[in-house]
Amino acid sequence: VLLVASLIDKLPNLAGLARTCEVMGAGRLVLADLAATRDPVFTSVSVTAEQWLPMEEVKPAALLAWLERRAAEGYTLVGLEQTAQSVRLPDYRWPAKVVLVLGREKEGIPPEVLSLLDATLEIPQRGIIRSLNVHVSGAIALYEYVRQMQFPQQLQSVAGGN
Amino acid sequence: VLLVASLIDKLPNLAGLARTCEVMGAGRLVLADLAATRDPVFTSVSVTAEQWLPMEEVKPAALLAWLERRAAEGYTLVGLEQTAQSVRLPDYRWPAKVVLVLGREKEGIPPEVLSLLDATLEIPQRGIIRSLNVHVSGAIALYEYVRQMQFPQQLQSVAGGN
Repeated sequence: VLLVASLIDKLPNLAGLARTCEVMGAGRLVLADLAATRDPVFTSVSVTAEQWLPMEEVKPAALLAWLERRAAEGYTLVGLEQTAQSVRLPDYRWPAKVVLVLGREKEGIPPEVLSLLDATLEIPQRGIIRSLNVHVSGAIALYEYVRQMQFPQQLQSVAGGN
Repeated sequence: VLLVASLIDKLPNLAGLARTCEVMGAGRLVLADLAATRDPVFTSVSVTAEQWLPMEEVKPAALLAWLERRAAEGYTLVGLEQTAQSVRLPDYRWPAKVVLVLGREKEGIPPEVLSLLDATLEIPQRGIIRSLNVHVSGAIALYEYVRQMQFPQQLQSVAGGN
């Protein structure tokens, strides 16, 4: 899974995602600006993740073309966003070769990016506040990907016991 | 699910957990000091969660007795901690009535609390960094609880398709 964080502005979110990607074994983290990974605010949160995690720089202006190239290489493009068409995260069957796009902190994923995606996913939410922090959302989506890739036998045994 | 954050020190982690608990519909958040929820550092991260989420104050010194009372009421006590006996999160079958204990940022869950727990859970990890942020860990565990409680039909249909 390639995680695209090019639309995210805040360093604590970016650095937190780097830490989480490294721990969860994500294939690559895509950022708008690799220089941000040398900022002390970043390194205080990332706990050295930038030293171990494959990272790539893709500016927001270059993101559409970058996504089209990944699609041409056979990647499925998914985004984490609440839309009328969104699939609830537990219901989505992840392909192994996938790009996961996270949205801007306030505005989410812009329409021109949404139009390129094969699917949008949303985390089931029940409260009055209508959204999770973007680092937390991305971490939960990565967990669900890892769960489905690494624990298929668990899925079967659960259903067998029901 | 009752989430116990009494052992956590950092306000951004506590406030982030409050936001995540509210969004995910957790039954209650347990904190060492409810006054912390009025700190500007807390409210800037919690985005009003403290207004909607049931919260309870339990000091660390009172935590053992509090956990024993919950066990007597029929709650299963689980903790998020990497131990030799930990069950991997995707393999654990959650009961509905459960207390989830999170550990201190550095030291984790102390032995005297571990000894009271019915199970310890760990999130599958692959990288060089050996742990996720405590807010992120708690959010992933809450997601897995919600997934199992609310999407049992999804578990069956997945296995059927394998």
